[in-house]
Amino acid sequence: MAKEQKRYGLGIDLGGTKILAGVVDLESGKIIGSSRKKTHAERGAKAIEDRVKEVTQEALDAARLPTNGSIVGIGVGAAGQLDHKNGVILASPNLPFENFPLAKQLQGQFNLPVTLANDVEAAAYGELYHGAGKGCPLFVCVFVGTGIGGGIVQDGKLFRGVSGTAGELGHMTVVAGGRLCPCGSRGCLEAYASRTAMTHAIAGEVKRGRPSVVKAELEAGTGVLRSGHFADAINAKDELVIQTVHEASDYLGYGLASIINFYNPQKIILGGGVIEAMDVIFDRATQRAREIALPAPSRTVEFARAALGDNAGMVGAATLAGGGDR
Amino acid sequence: MAKEQKRYGLGIDLGGTKILAGVVDLESGKIIGSSRKKTHAERGAKAIEDRVKEVTQEALDAARLPTNGSIVGIGVGAAGQLDHKNGVILASPNLPFENFPLAKQLQGQFNLPVTLANDVEAAAYGELYHGAGKGCPLFVCVFVGTGIGGGIVQDGKLFRGVSGTAGELGHMTVVAGGRLCPCGSRGCLEAYASRTAMTHAIAGEVKRGRPSVVKAELEAGTGVLRSGHFADAINAKDELVIQTVHEASDYLGYGLASIINFYNPQKIILGGGVIEAMDVIFDRATQRAREIALPAPSRTVEFARAALGDNAGMVGAATLAGGGDR
Repeated sequence: MAKEQKRYGLGIDLGGTKILAGVVDLESGKIIGSSRKKTHAERGAKAIEDRVKEVTQEALDAARLPTNGSIVGIGVGAAGQLDHKNGVILASPNLPFENFPLAKQLQGQFNLPVTLANDVEAAAYGELYHGAGKGCPLFVCVFVGTGIGGGIVQDGKLFRGVSGTAGELGHMTVVAGGRLCPCGSRGCLEAYASRTAMTHAIAGEVKRGRPSVVKAELEAGTGVLRSGHFADAINAKDELVIQTVHEASDYLGYGLASIINFYNPQKIILGGGVIEAMDVIFDRATQRAREIALPAPSRTVEFARAALGDNAGMVGAATLAGGGDR
Repeated sequence: MAKEQKRYGLGIDLGGTKILAGVVDLESGKIIGSSRKKTHAERGAKAIEDRVKEVTQEALDAARLPTNGSIVGIGVGAAGQLDHKNGVILASPNLPFENFPLAKQLQGQFNLPVTLANDVEAAAYGELYHGAGKGCPLFVCVFVGTGIGGGIVQDGKLFRGVSGTAGELGHMTVVAGGRLCPCGSRGCLEAYASRTAMTHAIAGEVKRGRPSVVKAELEAGTGVLRSGHFADAINAKDELVIQTVHEASDYLGYGLASIINFYNPQKIILGGGVIEAMDVIFDRATQRAREIALPAPSRTVEFARAALGDNAGMVGAATLAGGGDR
């Protein structure tokens, strides 16, 4: 009897700081080979394209595909505005791409069909097919990192709204007229609960003379606090960092309550570097959300952590290569 | 050749202040006979039931149903928590009902199947079938009156979420930790942009000594300002009322922007007494929302006024009686 053919997807998560690629068993979600490299966005579009190709080849080599297996396609999750249909990155906040036909380039190199998706969409698909959203008919993913992004999943498909932009929950208002957000408006959730927002709040207090264990990191080099810095400062019982994280969690709780009241989802899945690094944010934000939201939808909503961690984008992109809803 | 049979629905809009009933042509949405009475909620559940029956009978009498027509059912839109399946009003903020089997009572009297729905749901159905939402695949209704309610319509059906409560957009946060809302939380849109919220804001300023043409209304009787009082005060160029209405419109703009960013609807339909009485609120809130929301979903969203006005709930309830999605 012939062995059953196994289907694999090659998923690529192209971010501003790192590129992840992996060969994923489309049935189980298992990664059978992967690779990662720094993006080095400062080196320009062509250099990034070359690095994406290198990482992809390394993942393929690492996978040592079984003889009864075949790769059905490549999926790429990338931050930015995309032309999904033609596989073009139109513009990106963290990558030096402008009208860059990434899908075509990869297709030429690997002779496989290429699907391009938004990074957050890809991660939501990862959670849907192989993570915390498996089997759940109605959920919202909330990813908290440098910014705050989200994905809405209805009946096994991403809900994209009328023009493909639904799920921008980082730009729901939590404080009308409040802090300036990178989007140009004021008072968005992202301006209160992202890592960037927390870093700005801490940096301001440190400049005003408040002590904190993260002072050295803030004053050295880029002035960027990574999620690990936050976690370390909390462990060191740093008062300023703890207070800032608590405030951010409370704002996140208000944002989640807005989602619960408007949308009445069965589940909210929280992920991203900030959520993974600090248990207190998940715990406090979800508790606040339950208190703030109306009793009926608050009773029914479940909260879960993203199950795939750093691999959600890569696994989700692979899933998209294997079909998804496109 | 036999004349085609025409189908009618009997719609009832049961509110805290008035009861409306009408016989509606289910194809055209035209009302062929109607009646209205004050609710007199203070007289108790049984008295209200009797009044509903009276208004319903009057609407039937006024309709003088053509011989080729038949009424297929009764639909009731009522504010409150409902047991849809059994047609029971479980509890209501403005009506003295508790576990009241209204559907059964009306069925016994008129010998027609009765469908019970939430007042806002009924109004959204009215706009969907015969109003500003006709033919639109993805829209959100926002009704601004004593409170703020809403309905989400996807592909010709109300989207109810996982447990039937979706669309509670009056309780999306606009000011985290802000004004106390009747729901018990703080900073909800309803606490900033409803007629009740505006009345409280104006009353506070008047108590602090600010002049206003509505001072007399506030101090007489119930202290309630109706939408008409607001409109009159704006016409009289009353500074306090104009300022309050502008502020409320700005908050409403933030709330609409949250909906646009999260949900990316094709259209937002604004209705309710406050919207109908003051053009400035529709104009200012929608302009603000376009400025605040992200550029892509802001460009595609359309804003429309509810087309059925006061009759939306009645017409929508009739439509539900005729089938709807139940």
